[in-house]
Amino acid sequence: MSPESKTSNRPTTVSARISPAAGLDVLSRNEVSRLRDASQRGVRALLRRCALAVLTQGVETDDARALLDRYPDFDIQVLQQDRGIKIELSHAPAQAFVDGRIIRGVNELLFAVIRDIVYVATQMEAEGFDLDDSAGITHAVFEILRNARVLRPHNDPNLVVCWGGHSIARREYEYTKQVGYQLGLRSLDIVTGCGPGAMKGPMKGAIIGHGKQRRKNNRYIGITEPGIIAAESPNPSVNHLIIMPDIEKRLEAFVRVGHGIIVFPGGVGTAEEILYLLGILLHPDNAGIPFPLIFTGPRESAAYFEQIDRFLRLTLGDDVAKRYHIVVDDAAEVAKLMVKGIDKVRDYRLDTKDAFFFNWALRIQIDLQLPFKPTHENVASLKLNRDQPAYRLAADLRRAFSGIVAGNVKEDGIRAIEQHGLFEIHGEPEIMRALDGLLQSFVAQHRMKLPGGSAYKPCYRVIVD
Amino acid sequence: MSPESKTSNRPTTVSARISPAAGLDVLSRNEVSRLRDASQRGVRALLRRCALAVLTQGVETDDARALLDRYPDFDIQVLQQDRGIKIELSHAPAQAFVDGRIIRGVNELLFAVIRDIVYVATQMEAEGFDLDDSAGITHAVFEILRNARVLRPHNDPNLVVCWGGHSIARREYEYTKQVGYQLGLRSLDIVTGCGPGAMKGPMKGAIIGHGKQRRKNNRYIGITEPGIIAAESPNPSVNHLIIMPDIEKRLEAFVRVGHGIIVFPGGVGTAEEILYLLGILLHPDNAGIPFPLIFTGPRESAAYFEQIDRFLRLTLGDDVAKRYHIVVDDAAEVAKLMVKGIDKVRDYRLDTKDAFFFNWALRIQIDLQLPFKPTHENVASLKLNRDQPAYRLAADLRRAFSGIVAGNVKEDGIRAIEQHGLFEIHGEPEIMRALDGLLQSFVAQHRMKLPGGSAYKPCYRVIVD
Amino acid sequence: MSPESKTSNRPTTVSARISPAAGLDVLSRNEVSRLRDASQRGVRALLRRCALAVLTQGVETDDARALLDRYPDFDIQVLQQDRGIKIELSHAPAQAFVDGRIIRGVNELLFAVIRDIVYVATQMEAEGFDLDDSAGITHAVFEILRNARVLRPHNDPNLVVCWGGHSIARREYEYTKQVGYQLGLRSLDIVTGCGPGAMKGPMKGAIIGHGKQRRKNNRYIGITEPGIIAAESPNPSVNHLIIMPDIEKRLEAFVRVGHGIIVFPGGVGTAEEILYLLGILLHPDNAGIPFPLIFTGPRESAAYFEQIDRFLRLTLGDDVAKRYHIVVDDAAEVAKLMVKGIDKVRDYRLDTKDAFFFNWALRIQIDLQLPFKPTHENVASLKLNRDQPAYRLAADLRRAFSGIVAGNVKEDGIRAIEQHGLFEIHGEPEIMRALDGLLQSFVAQHRMKLPGGSAYKPCYRVIVD
Amino acid sequence: MSPESKTSNRPTTVSARISPAAGLDVLSRNEVSRLRDASQRGVRALLRRCALAVLTQGVETDDARALLDRYPDFDIQVLQQDRGIKIELSHAPAQAFVDGRIIRGVNELLFAVIRDIVYVATQMEAEGFDLDDSAGITHAVFEILRNARVLRPHNDPNLVVCWGGHSIARREYEYTKQVGYQLGLRSLDIVTGCGPGAMKGPMKGAIIGHGKQRRKNNRYIGITEPGIIAAESPNPSVNHLIIMPDIEKRLEAFVRVGHGIIVFPGGVGTAEEILYLLGILLHPDNAGIPFPLIFTGPRESAAYFEQIDRFLRLTLGDDVAKRYHIVVDDAAEVAKLMVKGIDKVRDYRLDTKDAFFFNWALRIQIDLQLPFKPTHENVASLKLNRDQPAYRLAADLRRAFSGIVAGNVKEDGIRAIEQHGLFEIHGEPEIMRALDGLLQSFVAQHRMKLPGGSAYKPCYRVIVD
Repeated sequence: MSPESKTSNRPTTVSARISPAAGLDVLSRNEVSRLRDASQRGVRALLRRCALAVLTQGVETDDARALLDRYPDFDIQVLQQDRGIKIELSHAPAQAFVDGRIIRGVNELLFAVIRDIVYVATQMEAEGFDLDDSAGITHAVFEILRNARVLRPHNDPNLVVCWGGHSIARREYEYTKQVGYQLGLRSLDIVTGCGPGAMKGPMKGAIIGHGKQRRKNNRYIGITEPGIIAAESPNPSVNHLIIMPDIEKRLEAFVRVGHGIIVFPGGVGTAEEILYLLGILLHPDNAGIPFPLIFTGPRESAAYFEQIDRFLRLTLGDDVAKRYHIVVDDAAEVAKLMVKGIDKVRDYRLDTKDAFFFNWALRIQIDLQLPFKPTHENVASLKLNRDQPAYRLAADLRRAFSGIVAGNVKEDGIRAIEQHGLFEIHGEPEIMRALDGLLQSFVAQHRMKLPGGSAYKPCYRVIVD
Repeated sequence: MSPESKTSNRPTTVSARISPAAGLDVLSRNEVSRLRDASQRGVRALLRRCALAVLTQGVETDDARALLDRYPDFDIQVLQQDRGIKIELSHAPAQAFVDGRIIRGVNELLFAVIRDIVYVATQMEAEGFDLDDSAGITHAVFEILRNARVLRPHNDPNLVVCWGGHSIARREYEYTKQVGYQLGLRSLDIVTGCGPGAMKGPMKGAIIGHGKQRRKNNRYIGITEPGIIAAESPNPSVNHLIIMPDIEKRLEAFVRVGHGIIVFPGGVGTAEEILYLLGILLHPDNAGIPFPLIFTGPRESAAYFEQIDRFLRLTLGDDVAKRYHIVVDDAAEVAKLMVKGIDKVRDYRLDTKDAFFFNWALRIQIDLQLPFKPTHENVASLKLNRDQPAYRLAADLRRAFSGIVAGNVKEDGIRAIEQHGLFEIHGEPEIMRALDGLLQSFVAQHRMKLPGGSAYKPCYRVIVD
Repeated sequence: MSPESKTSNRPTTVSARISPAAGLDVLSRNEVSRLRDASQRGVRALLRRCALAVLTQGVETDDARALLDRYPDFDIQVLQQDRGIKIELSHAPAQAFVDGRIIRGVNELLFAVIRDIVYVATQMEAEGFDLDDSAGITHAVFEILRNARVLRPHNDPNLVVCWGGHSIARREYEYTKQVGYQLGLRSLDIVTGCGPGAMKGPMKGAIIGHGKQRRKNNRYIGITEPGIIAAESPNPSVNHLIIMPDIEKRLEAFVRVGHGIIVFPGGVGTAEEILYLLGILLHPDNAGIPFPLIFTGPRESAAYFEQIDRFLRLTLGDDVAKRYHIVVDDAAEVAKLMVKGIDKVRDYRLDTKDAFFFNWALRIQIDLQLPFKPTHENVASLKLNRDQPAYRLAADLRRAFSGIVAGNVKEDGIRAIEQHGLFEIHGEPEIMRALDGLLQSFVAQHRMKLPGGSAYKPCYRVIVD
Repeated sequence: MSPESKTSNRPTTVSARISPAAGLDVLSRNEVSRLRDASQRGVRALLRRCALAVLTQGVETDDARALLDRYPDFDIQVLQQDRGIKIELSHAPAQAFVDGRIIRGVNELLFAVIRDIVYVATQMEAEGFDLDDSAGITHAVFEILRNARVLRPHNDPNLVVCWGGHSIARREYEYTKQVGYQLGLRSLDIVTGCGPGAMKGPMKGAIIGHGKQRRKNNRYIGITEPGIIAAESPNPSVNHLIIMPDIEKRLEAFVRVGHGIIVFPGGVGTAEEILYLLGILLHPDNAGIPFPLIFTGPRESAAYFEQIDRFLRLTLGDDVAKRYHIVVDDAAEVAKLMVKGIDKVRDYRLDTKDAFFFNWALRIQIDLQLPFKPTHENVASLKLNRDQPAYRLAADLRRAFSGIVAGNVKEDGIRAIEQHGLFEIHGEPEIMRALDGLLQSFVAQHRMKLPGGSAYKPCYRVIVD
């Protein structure tokens, strides 16, 4: 821990050797050498990218590449020592250090990155999970979460997942803080997607609420995935970080550990999350399982959830609305509803002798678990009509939104659009019209934010069958 | 704790019976009955006013009366029970409660009010302190602080007092947060005057810094006095509240428990605090005692401390500047300087076998300890010339500023001005001009904020001898 | 803490300077200097004697003088430092040290001695308690216990007082350990008179029981008084030590903090304790107050409590037996009864809003509170007949036993007997016969152990009125 | 945890369903079902036997079968629940319960049994360790210890292993307590073989020492193996229990986690342990590795270690004595030497960047790791001569003692002797004579205790080559 501080042209950087503050501290020799090997070869680039995101915790940018460009000499090495592992950082952002010592919270997140990127990679390979099978995928999700020590056997249910846009209006952001404050006052902990906006506000609010109740040991859990973390670096409140291997496992992690979900306004990504969750909750096997779900925003955003609500009822049937509450501009009411909902979850788990820390009972169809590759072919072959159970339609709608997100902001998606033109989304006329309307209203409300802030140009074409 | 919630016209109020969360929990029967008696008679109005300030923690207003008007039916009773005491609240502000239960932090502050307003009153009477004597006053300050359990024998020196205006520019406020963040990253705790502005920012920043270092058991200590608390209700970060009996004992509490002081921009009150402290540090007996003192603000406020510095050098001599650092717009540098300064304090206390938790060694002249009553006669008889040791002049300058603060914002001061006209401040020409210039620049910079926001009309006249 | 170790002829001693491990750590300058003064003059001899008892914790001897003789050069000084106090030990028993550092537990007990012998003395003088008044005495008992931090506001009732002989048969001792084990398994803490025998066994047993239940923060409280501590130095299990000023306040401390009492076989001292407690419980004002009281011993000692029971019924009436259970040779049953009894105490305190930590409700008549001086005159004037309420007779019987204890083992008592001959105890024939029979059976059962182990020679004569 | 208590003829038993107090609390569904399956089939008998040993913690018997006979209806089932596992106990010994609830410490040991017997079995199978390879065996030892959470990354070295006989003289037992007390006063934790005698005394003593130093979180670790646990049930002080799969892995566990070893008098088993350790320490690769090793006993047992010393010097050369200290009757000296030795271990690990929690650097030859099957052939083929490096001879001498232990007390050894006659131990004349002398002195000193207490009849014949 005797860092030598170095000032390159700009920005200031620090090089240092770091021991884990917690976790990854009792490794076998084999594990240490597997870690070192993987970090030097297989996952090197990924590791570097994720580590940089953590070291710049709190800096907001939509552009991962820009970050790498700012720190071209940055490097991270995992060192083997009989005693365990150390990390060697070269030319790391100075903001992660205080007087030459790494900030403890950054240390923890950094080793969380090692743990999830390197360790999980090598262990999952070594132990041979079956990732084509529904139970196998759930098993993998469980292992990653357990390894991250996020499953706490003696805690009462209190994890509230907050979803919503990373780039929302000021008023909406303030509202997410108010909801977080009310949740914090009621001793609920927060899980979000780790970045800014609706992922940050609830945590900031909860910190104040927890502080006022003099609560210690609060959890602000960020669950992310390699494709997002660089663009959405963990906000400063995150004190537990988990990097799931892909979007689908990240979504499954949310619903398996969370005891209830609040959705704030957002864009296509938020729509994807809503449809993912409804795709699960509408499955007949899950009919009896309580799962509090609240859509909420400030008065100014009331229209947003009206549109979502209309779209959901139209496509999935009116019954879908039994699965969620819509609350407008009433943070305390949201928190009270969530407390009630989680009480039911608690009773249900006790009755069914299920764990509090992992929602084993929830059935997730394999369609929602397998990674969706947003190719033109895959997008074109989605079945968007009502000649199927609602939960299946929800799953394919989820994929449609996922494709659009990719076409908008993800590297491979953008490249695919450049090469092959717009995605074509086929479907039943009424659904197609509703979908088109919804997406256009997102554009009108500036909910389709793009890297660089350029004007939105749709990456898809809606085609009525 | 079975509160019955009642909605009066507006605002919402709650009535409830409350047990102490901590402190005041092992009382003798005698103490309980003394408490009840005092709360029903002697200190009743004071108690009601202070309790209301705490119950509206975080609400900013400069007008204590307005608060009492908003909650005309509010009442607080101390109940005697063999088991200890309870508090009966009637028509209390609903914001202090969550689902009918009082917020734990508010509970703690409420019982801190009882402790300091009622308990201290009765105990100091019962035990007979000599409050006309310097040692007697220091003894009383010690007893109140010990009784508040704010003296921690096993902690290393780490308490940084932050002074500055309660109503400062946005940029200045942001800067106080940055300084607080840098202090928090270095595991320093914060003591302030409890209210908004420069009393709030450092605490908010420190919370983030402490959080990132995963530090628990942080202390955000607010020291106030009955005449101020209503106007400057504890900001939401305050987790230890102490109400000293008067301004002078409050100032003594700051310098006895703090291990270093940072002064942010402020108005006349801040000037009073600076002169109080320099009145101590310039005393020959204190020459060898280290006491880190830093004046700092953002770039935009550089002029402020230049003026202060000029004024101090002119009136107290150039040597005064050896007692403080001025740092412009460099929050990390402020924190580093403070860490170094406190290291020296630590070494000094070890060498001299003095306590870490109370600065016994510092000599405070009785002039600075005795309450200054801002009457026309007292103000007029201040000796503002350089025919005396600098520490004595500093003491009388402190009183001059104190008088102006009273004439500006305190009930008795305002009434005195209404009745007898402006205060007359006599003194040496050069000092008088400098004083006048300083005060006018405060006005120009909008640092003389008045209740109601009316334009500033001076309450004093400077008279050259 | 840099001790210099010195080997005098024999036994080995150590000289060292010691800081308090806990308690007495936030003192004012006044308090420190009062402490130093008192320790150098007023209570010097007492302090030295008690400190030596603590430093030889665990060594069993009935002869306090022998201990002082073994360490003739031993001395203890309280040093004043601004920072607080230190203790200077000269030629202290080496067994209290490990490699030159004092054992932490011994440190704690040593400062408990300072606290109770010196601090309490000076404070009680400074604050002027009325020790001729029942409420005043109770107040003093409360203050001493609170100052010793033995009153814990947030603990559920769980303190079991164990009384019984300090010199009992092996089988009886083993049984006290078994009872302690059963109490410990049920998370009850132990209060005893601090010394060996029935004061040690229950603690030793409870340690095992607490350990098996993985319970931390266990309390093994020893309450003693200056006249006894030297002869009955704290057994090694005691982790909280309180020195009350005299026998009567010590007895009151037991009944005010204890939630139930178990009496094991003992001698005259134990009889004194039983009569003290029944003197309270038989008072009409206390009729409705639950107070679990169990007499118990192994099978071999069944006769002992049969005799006691007979004596109590004869003198105080058959109703007295409603106030106690007799359990023979069933440690688990004792613990179960105690748990049930304490549950009732808990309910009662909740109903009457009384504190858990101090039994305010119990009425103790002034006869039981005022120190009884065992002069010939006082003993002779006891009223031992049934022409008075049972609770009054119990009080005077208590005094009779107290006189006999003094005549047997206490310095002043022994001297009085030497000068003036045997005590004469007058009373109603039947009571006198019963008393004589009881005392003779104690002799026969070897329950009258004397210093030096000489054969018992009665110090009293029973005279039938 | 709602047990129904049942009294069968005799002894009293309880049936109950139990949740884990700690450990085994976050299991995947797969793991739970593997556990249940194994417990119902593969390891059922073993599990039942070990569980019974734990439930009768503290009961001393040399006869495992007797225990099973006393509780013929006792049964244990692992139940699968989504929420995790529970254990169903039928007709379990009542002493493990208090008022129908299992004692928490017993609960922990019971789940330690499940963890090590069932879980390790299934995991090691599932993950495929190479148990014929030296590194593979060490890896397995590491995994079992890590899974038992006995490896603590942030603790300073402080684990003292105590070896010695389970059936020793009263005076020797008292001495082991004194040594434990001195170790406890110096904040050292204890590791032993789990049973009575020299495995119990040091823990009992350390509890007192730790208590006097007010030390919490003490560790009294018992490491056992399935063939011994039934005969040597964990003594009441053990608060961490580990069941290694066989003798050799148990011995490796001792030397990998311990930071120093104290050997008290014992019998053949103790000799086996000494030779095992010297077999390691004499290996040239380990020449530079510090490892404090102390042989000690009370004055009465001085002869014992003289004999051992003579035997070791004769067989392994005088240099062997550099590896151990012999201390006679000086408990404090033993503890001081151990503290010094462990300081060197600490420095060495820091220098070589080795872990504190696992002695990776120590080279253990495969001869000492592979289980030794005590057949007539294997015993006969041992090479007991000095035509080989000392560390090899030590390894074969270790096996010779191991064979004798088996022939004396282990089921398969006894049966082999019954079928095929005495073991024949061949070797160099001088060694054979020394061995014979040593063994006969063990007999003379009653150190060869047999089940049932019958007179010792040697199970071997020494044959001079």
